Amino acid sequence: MTFDPSLRSRPIVIENTRPSVDCGRWPVKRELGDHLTVEADVFKEGHGVLRVLLRLRDNPHEGWSERPMRLVNTGLDRWQATVPLGSLGRWQYTVAAWEDPFASWAKDAAKKLDAGQDVALEAVEARRLFDAALLRMEAEGAEADLILARSLVTRLTQAKTDAGKVEVFLSPEAAGLMERWPDRSGQVVHEPPLEVVVEPLNARYAAWYEIFPRSQGSDPGRSGTFDDCIARLPEIAAMGFDVLYLVPIHPIGETFRKGPNNSFPAEEGAPGSPYAIGSRHGGHKAVHPELGTIEDFRRLVAEAEKHGLALALDIAIQCSRDHPWIDEHPEWFEFRPDGSIRYAENPPKKYQDIVNVTFYGEHREALWNELLSMFVYWCEQGVRIFRVDNPHTKPVPFWEWVIREVKERYPDAVFLAEAFTRPPMLKMLAKVGFSQSYTYFTWRNLKWELTDYLTDLVMTDTAEYLRPNLFTNTPDILPEYLQRGGRPAFMIRAVLAATLSSVYGIYSGYELCENAALPGREEYLDSEKYEIRVRDWDQPGNIKDLITALNRIRRDNAALHELRNLRFHEADDENVLFYSKVSFDGSNMVFVAVNLDPFETHEAVLEFPLDRMGLPEDGSFAVEDLLAGSRRLWRGAHHGVRLDPAVNPAAILRVTPWKPVFFRDPYY
Amino acid sequence: MTFDPSLRSRPIVIENTRPSVDCGRWPVKRELGDHLTVEADVFKEGHGVLRVLLRLRDNPHEGWSERPMRLVNTGLDRWQATVPLGSLGRWQYTVAAWEDPFASWAKDAAKKLDAGQDVALEAVEARRLFDAALLRMEAEGAEADLILARSLVTRLTQAKTDAGKVEVFLSPEAAGLMERWPDRSGQVVHEPPLEVVVEPLNARYAAWYEIFPRSQGSDPGRSGTFDDCIARLPEIAAMGFDVLYLVPIHPIGETFRKGPNNSFPAEEGAPGSPYAIGSRHGGHKAVHPELGTIEDFRRLVAEAEKHGLALALDIAIQCSRDHPWIDEHPEWFEFRPDGSIRYAENPPKKYQDIVNVTFYGEHREALWNELLSMFVYWCEQGVRIFRVDNPHTKPVPFWEWVIREVKERYPDAVFLAEAFTRPPMLKMLAKVGFSQSYTYFTWRNLKWELTDYLTDLVMTDTAEYLRPNLFTNTPDILPEYLQRGGRPAFMIRAVLAATLSSVYGIYSGYELCENAALPGREEYLDSEKYEIRVRDWDQPGNIKDLITALNRIRRDNAALHELRNLRFHEADDENVLFYSKVSFDGSNMVFVAVNLDPFETHEAVLEFPLDRMGLPEDGSFAVEDLLAGSRRLWRGAHHGVRLDPAVNPAAILRVTPWKPVFFRDPYY
Repeated sequence: MTFDPSLRSRPIVIENTRPSVDCGRWPVKRELGDHLTVEADVFKEGHGVLRVLLRLRDNPHEGWSERPMRLVNTGLDRWQATVPLGSLGRWQYTVAAWEDPFASWAKDAAKKLDAGQDVALEAVEARRLFDAALLRMEAEGAEADLILARSLVTRLTQAKTDAGKVEVFLSPEAAGLMERWPDRSGQVVHEPPLEVVVEPLNARYAAWYEIFPRSQGSDPGRSGTFDDCIARLPEIAAMGFDVLYLVPIHPIGETFRKGPNNSFPAEEGAPGSPYAIGSRHGGHKAVHPELGTIEDFRRLVAEAEKHGLALALDIAIQCSRDHPWIDEHPEWFEFRPDGSIRYAENPPKKYQDIVNVTFYGEHREALWNELLSMFVYWCEQGVRIFRVDNPHTKPVPFWEWVIREVKERYPDAVFLAEAFTRPPMLKMLAKVGFSQSYTYFTWRNLKWELTDYLTDLVMTDTAEYLRPNLFTNTPDILPEYLQRGGRPAFMIRAVLAATLSSVYGIYSGYELCENAALPGREEYLDSEKYEIRVRDWDQPGNIKDLITALNRIRRDNAALHELRNLRFHEADDENVLFYSKVSFDGSNMVFVAVNLDPFETHEAVLEFPLDRMGLPEDGSFAVEDLLAGSRRLWRGAHHGVRLDPAVNPAAILRVTPWKPVFFRDPYY
Repeated sequence: MTFDPSLRSRPIVIENTRPSVDCGRWPVKRELGDHLTVEADVFKEGHGVLRVLLRLRDNPHEGWSERPMRLVNTGLDRWQATVPLGSLGRWQYTVAAWEDPFASWAKDAAKKLDAGQDVALEAVEARRLFDAALLRMEAEGAEADLILARSLVTRLTQAKTDAGKVEVFLSPEAAGLMERWPDRSGQVVHEPPLEVVVEPLNARYAAWYEIFPRSQGSDPGRSGTFDDCIARLPEIAAMGFDVLYLVPIHPIGETFRKGPNNSFPAEEGAPGSPYAIGSRHGGHKAVHPELGTIEDFRRLVAEAEKHGLALALDIAIQCSRDHPWIDEHPEWFEFRPDGSIRYAENPPKKYQDIVNVTFYGEHREALWNELLSMFVYWCEQGVRIFRVDNPHTKPVPFWEWVIREVKERYPDAVFLAEAFTRPPMLKMLAKVGFSQSYTYFTWRNLKWELTDYLTDLVMTDTAEYLRPNLFTNTPDILPEYLQRGGRPAFMIRAVLAATLSSVYGIYSGYELCENAALPGREEYLDSEKYEIRVRDWDQPGNIKDLITALNRIRRDNAALHELRNLRFHEADDENVLFYSKVSFDGSNMVFVAVNLDPFETHEAVLEFPLDRMGLPEDGSFAVEDLLAGSRRLWRGAHHGVRLDPAVNPAAILRVTPWKPVFFRDPYY
């Protein structure tokens, strides 16, 4: 190795730039209207003054905008700037820095002047830097600054001593001028730039309600329709939901249909599983005829919007034996030596009703493009939210590609990954582009389980790219906790889901506390996946009032719109979980205490973090119990709660610190 | 964006590869004879069997060697392999993975066979994979495996049923053969490779002793010489040190010499500071004539080696006003408008005796090469260890370049950074190549300070690239703790330095508990930096016995040769610090309890981590107090110690778990 000035490190070091995922390999995620706070360690040998800028752009083809970063921790050379994110899409940001010889000169010259030292050489050196800046102003024809510069030259000529000259250069006018006309030839820029994907607010903040459209009618012998869904909209909207998520609406295959409780073969006339996609009526761009027409669907989208509900579609990339692709594109499937099509298997289990496309075949470009066009088609029908079924059984690069392609066309598209698989794949799918992910929340019930799990999810770098959508249940998962804990369990888990994350969901029937399971399994008995269910949505024992209250409380409290603001606090009973969220601007503080035991009443002493609340040790705060409607004024850190799972399993407390007023304060 | 198959993520994902520094941007550090354990998350969609290999090479110009990685955590897709590092230099390592269709086939086929399902197609599919492997064997002319393959073909022909054929393919012979001849065309390799710099063992494990050579004589009116240093070697070696570190030995400038206690101007005949480098006798490649000749120096190197001492030189890149470079290479210096050379300043302070080269000048290539040749020159004189003075006042890229250049020629060279500056720069210098760093250890005295600081240093990724050399004192730093705490403080800090890190040092005089300071300062009174000091090395009150014992204990206990094995444990008194080190192979366990209060005796109950020691709750272990020489047999986790700072401020306990012998064990 011979002398090589192009080493990887630079005279000015820019390290540890945050936020970032895997050192910038993947973008971080934010939402429209959010603020991005960027930090970096910036330093250089010696004592020169550094200038540090945050550069950002909302489009890789445009020029950078710049704003100064501020040294927020001198001892750690930590610089910071915060910027609002005003448009959707893929932003780039990076950090630029240079040494400012004039500011460095000024720092030393001021000290020498104070010490009464000779500053003759300082005056000459400043003039050299000043003249160089003058040339830059002239080259740009900066009239106003040239006038100011000439007035400074006049003052210099009038100064009788070296000290007088140095004082001119130390004037605010000179400093401002020199700061506006820096020599940035030695600038170092952190490369490559980092990226932030700005998604719509509902990627972070929304309450989801999942339905089987065919179960929305009133006659169990007949499939519900899109019109039946429209009829249900007022009730769903009244509960306060933001997203209405439909399981697959495509034509259901007729060959090898599954019957009730996954029985096989099904009896004649069984409705089949909506996940067996494709029939003579069409594939992934068609709707099941029993639900209605595509026009009916578009009407549902429009009506839902009127009720403040965004529609989410369930996309399952798998085919029934009757999917049109099998005839039209046999090259997208894998065939066995006897010419039969390979179907899904998990030996010794066989899933003859489902065949999978092969993502790695010779003809994959056409297949991938067809799948892209499927997403685009549904965007054209007004859909922007996609819940993707089993994404972990398809190639990671496919998702990276297709999500990016869709979002280039529809930057407000949101993708939820049903990644019920091992943690590395779950996280990887979020890194490559999914906006949200299902999580293991359903299986975390105890205090230490919830604390550990949510800490990892939202208080680490994971939250820079993964937004946990906390579903209480799904058509595939009726957790043991709900099976055993009955109505109180449903209340408890609803409170947790709605307040631990900013985005959560329930699968319909939850509000009715449905908990009949297949024996020894997590599966629903008489699952809607295989049959049409008709319910009395107002049956006794339902918890619609609680759900409605939770969604109202979410809406009214900005703290609950945020994800990464979750903090856990001390409660002296192992059944009581105590946590808080404080809004970005600090104006809204919500504390939640939940009794996790569905069987017994528990009492606990809660420890409020007065310090974080901006209060002294004996500070007072107003407390509004948002579920019970009561109000109190509390003083000091410790306060008791008694939580009866059957009646009030949780206390959701909006807290307002009372600032003491002292005589010296102006409003006395 | 059109269809692009070359996306950044790959079908097989290789993530979170460890060890790595900043996602592989900088190399990790290991030592000759050490083991490197590499881990990675490796996964893919679906249920196929993956093969994962660690690839490594000790030279970027050679081919990779490979060894299989093992799935150590199925739930987290975590793979691991451990390899010995048998040569010095810059190694590369990476992870390669592919899906093994035959192994995947075998997994499913075995289940189908067990379930009695038809396997006709399985037999055909296996034969296709087998035939493809056969072609690969033939292409390579793999005689032995071809013979084996043909015998399998014979067995296939003889098999009467599909199940029989499948059984042949499931035989260990077939599995072994197919594993040896895989189709690796779909292989994914983590790019770019990661790097590990393998340095000599003394980069991690050594005890340093620092001297001013001119103070090693017996007459305060005359400079000690290299021969005086040689005379001191037996005594220094007897204390058990490994490295003898000399402050700069270069000619000392005559202009603007500093006198005792940094006075200026110095009186006629003052010896000056050895950090004012360069005179008419030469610069950085010369020795101060009062110390002897270069031949004398080489003799010192050789004699030291005979005593098991490696010599470390102090390199300070700064010049006295008399340095030959100023005349020979004025272009390496910065001049002010009046033609005077710019000297070191920290306004209003002036350091007229020191001028600095300018690393950014037009002629920097010649300067950088001269500095490189200076390091090479001293390597040629037999030196391999360089302690670099104030590296944080020189450019980071210079260090990256020069250390790499030196180590390409002398891979056993070791660099210690005197980076007493802010943490980001301190860490950066380690990242770009320094083998070791001074730390803030000197200013960490309380239990929480030491616990927090050492946790950050050796139990995080920091220890992948930074080795803390814990100096108890330096010619610039006589910490307040030593000034106030007297002899017990010296004993306490020696124990901490010698056992918390695997590499530590003392500046001579420490063993005599010298603690006279300039009032209100951390500086030594009558500092050796400005005068010749002659000491009675056996004066009463010295702690040479303790130092000797500590170095012997370090040598005898492999656990203390390691750095990253430090763990802190509970002791119920806030003055008692309790920690342990266990050797890589688990055979050597050392526990240390230190009373941090130099004034009072403290008692504490120590909690031994029985679980980590491989013992049950009521397990027993033998304890050998290595300083006191006593032995005990302890049972259970809790045991008391009483530590009198004047007598026994610390207990260093070698622990041997006693495994209970049960009847079922073979040695009954």
